[in-house]
Amino acid sequence: MQKISDISSKLESGIKRLGLNGKPNGLYEPIRYILSLGGKRIRPLMTLIAAEMFDSTPYNAMPQALAIEVFHNFTLLHDDIMDEAPLRRNQETVHLKWNVNTGILSGDAMLIKAYQLLSATPHIYLPEILALFNETALGVCEGQQLDMEFEERNDVQIPEYIEMIRLKTAVLLACALKTGAIIGGAENDAMDKMYEIGENLGIAFQLQDDILDAFGTAKIGKRQGGDIISNKKTYLLITALKEAKGETLAELNKWIEAKEFDEEEKVAAVLRIFEKLNVRAISEKEMSIYSDKAFKSLDALALTVEKKANILSVMNTLLKREF
Amino acid sequence: MQKISDISSKLESGIKRLGLNGKPNGLYEPIRYILSLGGKRIRPLMTLIAAEMFDSTPYNAMPQALAIEVFHNFTLLHDDIMDEAPLRRNQETVHLKWNVNTGILSGDAMLIKAYQLLSATPHIYLPEILALFNETALGVCEGQQLDMEFEERNDVQIPEYIEMIRLKTAVLLACALKTGAIIGGAENDAMDKMYEIGENLGIAFQLQDDILDAFGTAKIGKRQGGDIISNKKTYLLITALKEAKGETLAELNKWIEAKEFDEEEKVAAVLRIFEKLNVRAISEKEMSIYSDKAFKSLDALALTVEKKANILSVMNTLLKREF
Repeated sequence: MQKISDISSKLESGIKRLGLNGKPNGLYEPIRYILSLGGKRIRPLMTLIAAEMFDSTPYNAMPQALAIEVFHNFTLLHDDIMDEAPLRRNQETVHLKWNVNTGILSGDAMLIKAYQLLSATPHIYLPEILALFNETALGVCEGQQLDMEFEERNDVQIPEYIEMIRLKTAVLLACALKTGAIIGGAENDAMDKMYEIGENLGIAFQLQDDILDAFGTAKIGKRQGGDIISNKKTYLLITALKEAKGETLAELNKWIEAKEFDEEEKVAAVLRIFEKLNVRAISEKEMSIYSDKAFKSLDALALTVEKKANILSVMNTLLKREF
Repeated sequence: MQKISDISSKLESGIKRLGLNGKPNGLYEPIRYILSLGGKRIRPLMTLIAAEMFDSTPYNAMPQALAIEVFHNFTLLHDDIMDEAPLRRNQETVHLKWNVNTGILSGDAMLIKAYQLLSATPHIYLPEILALFNETALGVCEGQQLDMEFEERNDVQIPEYIEMIRLKTAVLLACALKTGAIIGGAENDAMDKMYEIGENLGIAFQLQDDILDAFGTAKIGKRQGGDIISNKKTYLLITALKEAKGETLAELNKWIEAKEFDEEEKVAAVLRIFEKLNVRAISEKEMSIYSDKAFKSLDALALTVEKKANILSVMNTLLKREF
């Protein structure tokens, strides 16, 4: 088994060698820019590690890993336009550094580029990998649409929320792992388990993200309580709205509806409501349901402990956010 | 050989049966809307007709024809956002009927849907068809980028312009014909000729479009001289800027730079300049170079006259705009 740091470094070289130097430069420069902003590269890393689990070298899955990373960055680029986000990884977003039209078009080209990378798949695996990727990519769009629709609603239910994050976040992790497994030559049952690991890990990861926004220490480029300030329909807020009664519900709604408020005061008040309603424990329990499922699927894989070491390490770091 | 009207009607049923009924409806409704606006369906028709030329039924190429039509409508949807166009086929554009975010995201889903349709290609043809489609789709993005960049420039040269319309318009027609030929089981040489037909036809078609804007009778949904009013860098304007000297050039530049003007007066004045500089004849000659090439490639195909009847008919109607 290769060391994760070695795999990561090969991956980074792969991204640098993508050679998005086509003409006109105005189309390709924003693509090189967003890909150069870094990030954890967690999805392509999972593809490479998954391939290695099934007796392949990780690097057989490099084109597919790169396709998934390019696709992921395409979604970030277009999502940032839709969210009017000024920053991505602490740098100017593409639509601000250039303009919205450039962001739309360079994003489109990235989506096509992802398919071009995927087309390098050995012919025997191509139909299956393509079908999985198509379904995943459509799912991600559906998740983003649901996320936008939830912004306009105050009656989002927990199952709807879980379905949204499954589509927006989890299916791409699932696709990343299953794609690597396919390239590695895994059996159908093992492929399905790899998909389940990614799907449940993705949901747990997003729930953790919700929890950390409210209760964690602020991360670089994000502000503590940002979701609370913007009334984002996170698992926490949906749970609070479900659990709250009487005066507590009235106070929560007052903060949600407030147009002018002191941000620190709102965060502190909503956190007090979360505490009263036991929202943190409820959310952590929900998160552990999904992370447990992911680890159970990993356990059920008929592979040696050594073969599972890399994915286990990535799962652990991801869920503890030390990665 | 099937009658073109029969093929067209089967194609229309195919588009209706695409069944873009997924959830959330907010993602899929704009896709159904733009596809329902009609249009000539020239690209998918060419794919079907091309397949038939090589001893296949046209309908073997239906998934690929639909993929190309969905892709084409995706480009229209995103281009309309970039151009801030209010109307598409005399109906409200998606970003006005819904909003820009919906337009971006539903467009993304259409691009993925096009690949999903393409994935139904028989496995033996899949790698080749996918590679062709990827290259074509990237080319279309490059063409759109060049088109946007040309808006900001007054020094666009004719070869650059031809390259832009080749990418933005012609390669998709070329891809449509070659894709049908591949599905029909054509030999490599015949495939290449089919590509050349589409490429040259596409350039001729766009040059004709430029000419008709200035000298034709106004079409539904377009205003006569619209390109002149907006200083669009058409073949005509680029030629005029190249040919004009002294006072004529000064007058042309005055109209290009004018911020406030009477639109009819500007159109009439620029048309007079075009006339003086022989712009119409130069443009028609250039157009005929490309249409001649297209017809020569068709002649060179070792097929019976009967086999060529449908494509010939489509080419003729397309270049005479009676279609």
